[in-house]
Amino acid sequence: MLQPIIHILSAQRNILASSSPRRKQILENIGLKFEVLSSSFEENLDKSQYTPSEYVLETARLKTQEVADKFKVNGLLPDLLIGADTVVAQDNHIIEKPQDKDDAVRILSLLSGRSHTVFTGVVIFVPAHSTVLPRGTKVLDGSYRCTGFVESTDVFMQQMSQEVIHSYIETGEPMDKAGAYGIQAIGGTLVEKIHGDFFNVMGFPLPRFAKELDSIYRSH
Amino acid sequence: MLQPIIHILSAQRNILASSSPRRKQILENIGLKFEVLSSSFEENLDKSQYTPSEYVLETARLKTQEVADKFKVNGLLPDLLIGADTVVAQDNHIIEKPQDKDDAVRILSLLSGRSHTVFTGVVIFVPAHSTVLPRGTKVLDGSYRCTGFVESTDVFMQQMSQEVIHSYIETGEPMDKAGAYGIQAIGGTLVEKIHGDFFNVMGFPLPRFAKELDSIYRSH
Repeated sequence: MLQPIIHILSAQRNILASSSPRRKQILENIGLKFEVLSSSFEENLDKSQYTPSEYVLETARLKTQEVADKFKVNGLLPDLLIGADTVVAQDNHIIEKPQDKDDAVRILSLLSGRSHTVFTGVVIFVPAHSTVLPRGTKVLDGSYRCTGFVESTDVFMQQMSQEVIHSYIETGEPMDKAGAYGIQAIGGTLVEKIHGDFFNVMGFPLPRFAKELDSIYRSH
Repeated sequence: MLQPIIHILSAQRNILASSSPRRKQILENIGLKFEVLSSSFEENLDKSQYTPSEYVLETARLKTQEVADKFKVNGLLPDLLIGADTVVAQDNHIIEKPQDKDDAVRILSLLSGRSHTVFTGVVIFVPAHSTVLPRGTKVLDGSYRCTGFVESTDVFMQQMSQEVIHSYIETGEPMDKAGAYGIQAIGGTLVEKIHGDFFNVMGFPLPRFAKELDSIYRSH
């Protein structure tokens, strides 16, 4: 989907405002060239005030804004900034990354044999006065225009015994991940099926992102 | 799902009877140790005589049998042989790997804006007289027991313009793949959503495989 515009993207400076190695890998796999500049924004929004969709979009925006602001100092804005945030939710209740092993046991026990939803918010920033003036972006402040979207995917987990849960936690994989599992490696054996976009469950909704970027740069 | 039995699997000789780099990667990612021995079996079954499910299971069995037979010469059978075959089908009609670029255009035009189904057949061979006597396997011949299953996943493709199709084919990605696309890289941008197991679309249904292997070795 991005191939017809990849020459435009390749000729400009792109920033991924996320330190997630999975997001980096997904974007590298499609041949996009970019630099990684991660945000030090603390994810501290009051979750009780937001739906999961609102929460990920707002967190993605704030994280990306923080990276975007760094470029205002010398006025040399990058051509494209990409930011994202992912959470897992069950019954509209946001489930965090596990705080320790006991917390991972609690989370995986909650997910076992049931479905949950993965939400990722993605934001796209472009300079407000870019010679490429992408369609569909809104002026954010004097420097940038911004657009964004949220993708959700339903995930159905297998029934997991306490033995399976504990031995999975011992692999170390769950500790830095929303919902205490990673679908792309060992955690993939715990998932029965998904409805929606797999890349979204990895943390970056590639198909929708490609469609949005295509629609933005097509106007050019 | 495999973690509780990974110590059994790690202590034995496992063979993946497939040269697919994607299958190798999926099994490596979960920490399984194995050797790759690919089959030279020609996939020549008459497709008009089989449903897609029957076709992939029978092709997987024949490919794996060919590799398994090589070990009969010296009698040192491996502890586990894994084989698989994947096809794409639309309206129960099997779609092959593209023969050339024109064929890839034809296939991708067929898939555009519609759903299709990916079928993978997986077979598991163990020695008939193994000291580990896995449950649920049937005696295949004097040397091996065998079990197998088929996983299917529905894939919904985005509407693709001829420009998108041609520029995707120019990346070279479609040529060695059933259905002329690879979901794990650039082709991932062409897929709108899936219903079912993502790994199956990559060519190896990991969650179901883990469940089967767990059930087989649990009896032990």
